[in-house]
Amino acid sequence: MPTVLPPDSVGLVIPQTLAFDEPLELDSGKTLPRYDLVVETYGELNADRSNAVLICHALSGDHHAAGYHGMEDRKPGWWDSAIGPGKPIDTTRFFVVCLNNLGGCRGSTGPTSVNPDTGRVYGPDFPIITVADWVRSQERLMHRLGIGQWAAVIGGSLGGMQVMQWAIGFPKLLRHAAVIAAAPRLSAQNIAFNEVARQAIFADPDFHDGHYQEHGTLPRKGLMLARMLGHITYLSDDAMRAKFGRELRAGKINFGFDVEFQVESYLRYQGASFVDRFDANTYLLMTKALDYFDPAGEFGHDLSKAFAATEADFLVVSFTTDWRFSPARSREIVKALLDVNKHVSYAEIESSHGHDAFLVPIPDYMNVFRAYMGRVAAEFTKGEA
Amino acid sequence: MPTVLPPDSVGLVIPQTLAFDEPLELDSGKTLPRYDLVVETYGELNADRSNAVLICHALSGDHHAAGYHGMEDRKPGWWDSAIGPGKPIDTTRFFVVCLNNLGGCRGSTGPTSVNPDTGRVYGPDFPIITVADWVRSQERLMHRLGIGQWAAVIGGSLGGMQVMQWAIGFPKLLRHAAVIAAAPRLSAQNIAFNEVARQAIFADPDFHDGHYQEHGTLPRKGLMLARMLGHITYLSDDAMRAKFGRELRAGKINFGFDVEFQVESYLRYQGASFVDRFDANTYLLMTKALDYFDPAGEFGHDLSKAFAATEADFLVVSFTTDWRFSPARSREIVKALLDVNKHVSYAEIESSHGHDAFLVPIPDYMNVFRAYMGRVAAEFTKGEA
Repeated sequence: MPTVLPPDSVGLVIPQTLAFDEPLELDSGKTLPRYDLVVETYGELNADRSNAVLICHALSGDHHAAGYHGMEDRKPGWWDSAIGPGKPIDTTRFFVVCLNNLGGCRGSTGPTSVNPDTGRVYGPDFPIITVADWVRSQERLMHRLGIGQWAAVIGGSLGGMQVMQWAIGFPKLLRHAAVIAAAPRLSAQNIAFNEVARQAIFADPDFHDGHYQEHGTLPRKGLMLARMLGHITYLSDDAMRAKFGRELRAGKINFGFDVEFQVESYLRYQGASFVDRFDANTYLLMTKALDYFDPAGEFGHDLSKAFAATEADFLVVSFTTDWRFSPARSREIVKALLDVNKHVSYAEIESSHGHDAFLVPIPDYMNVFRAYMGRVAAEFTKGEA
Repeated sequence: MPTVLPPDSVGLVIPQTLAFDEPLELDSGKTLPRYDLVVETYGELNADRSNAVLICHALSGDHHAAGYHGMEDRKPGWWDSAIGPGKPIDTTRFFVVCLNNLGGCRGSTGPTSVNPDTGRVYGPDFPIITVADWVRSQERLMHRLGIGQWAAVIGGSLGGMQVMQWAIGFPKLLRHAAVIAAAPRLSAQNIAFNEVARQAIFADPDFHDGHYQEHGTLPRKGLMLARMLGHITYLSDDAMRAKFGRELRAGKINFGFDVEFQVESYLRYQGASFVDRFDANTYLLMTKALDYFDPAGEFGHDLSKAFAATEADFLVVSFTTDWRFSPARSREIVKALLDVNKHVSYAEIESSHGHDAFLVPIPDYMNVFRAYMGRVAAEFTKGEA
């Protein structure tokens, strides 16, 4: 609990809820008749509205990317390491927009919202959402906020997929695209992990085919298993070795099935605490958005062709021990961009943190990110000098 | 179904059950008052009893390593690729012994057996078994079979751990030790996967704290999840890409949670079929045996010291895309052996099959294995010439 907020924090922030009454047609063929998006903004929009950046969140993220909601908060927003005064996404220069995506469970319309057609909670009837659907909803948000073009769209992991989709779907609406710890599509192994996570949720008798809210239950065990598995893929083998090794919680083997190794304790804690703050139907939707993302698919599986009409400059960042979306996956993106003569800066950051590295303020990473964002800012501050 | 058995098969084999009435003290401090071991043997023991080799099985293996139980069998034993006339473990030269380990579910005493103390099925009350316990029970089996020294003890994965334990625990009772696709201990990541598998089984309401047999249920979903997860770690990312890629089962996305990608279909099939042939309590025991194995632990975490008193020559084999027990883990074993001046042959086999490679007849692997076993056989056939 900060008694005084850190000087490089965006400080206390208040989320806003924006209502959209125009129906949104989805890739699935279904339509959302209306929806809310919960949004946080940091910094100020400049006079010519040229300094806005959009932050896209990953699987379990939300609109609360930086700062604090109250003085009693134990932790700041999920990307506070990168967003704030003097940080890579410098809020003294940028107007930063972050939203909870559709299908989410932190205030934007999703499975826990009431379906206006039925008056009942959507639950499992909430339509499956794609990355392109999110980007279309974000484009409406952009216009609502009076922004004509993003200085940059930025995201890590599933957020990086949204960034690519922005560049492909709305080439003129962003000047820079920062794709961090992402991949141009999931591999079979990535899909396999998602599938086991989904089956764990489905197998929980408290899931009730997704209608757990009506049954007054929560698929705690299933969601916990899904999250435990997720954490294994977010951390590297090395990071786990450094963090836990084979350390025993009680100092000795107890020949039973209670927690023995520290890594078991960590996973159970991460799994159990996730259940209190996340919705299982949302988790399922997020895994499907990941599985389906494949922008090259419409272009004969040629990623270069998918990028051919993009106009943004790209920053692509990967992390050496990320085995969820390895550097090789980022290099596919870089190669595809170069093949069609796009401007791309690429950094492969040495790190032991696995996929989680994109949330960690690793000095080399922060320096690269800060330098790139400085270049983005220089473009709109030129005229002001 | 073979209408004629292949010429390089050991043919039809009949398992034998051997009863051991002397109590076995276990590492946990508990005692098994009596136990059965189910055994298969292939080939013939020579006059001076010098040609016996022991095959140790891995997590889901059993005594049926080669040949067929009946003409209607769809598949031969689990290591038929390596055991038979003319194969690396050549049954025209070796007398091959394979057993179902204690705690197993294929006939040897385990959780599905009746506890003689209570007259009821052991279920979750079956004691936790360690790799060293297995090796002690295998040493008794050896004497029962009239074998004074193994020409070789051979195993892959968890089987390779038993081989190391043999060399450390009974240095004079084996001349060669073949450790394939193994590791000197589990990493935190390995333990983490085991823990998620265990929690999946525990979370199944049909598990009934392990007393599912009395309840007339089976924790099908939990065991299925555990096995699905296992399969992800047995296959490499590359192997999955080659085998499934992002291929869709119905040719198109259906925006739902039924099977869409081929890899999902594969995992569900593997998981579902495992449930029909494996016991969940046994699965739990096997994961604990894996977690606990750490021969260096008693030697100040110095693996070289653990190997210092071994007398066997070693063959160590690893596979390039095995990420469950990567080549680096095998090289730890090799280095520790070399540090204490042991004879060790090491082969790192190029393969896309991940951990599963140890069961696949990859030509380079088979050649190395055959050459090494030829050397083993030359030692006892010398006198016969």
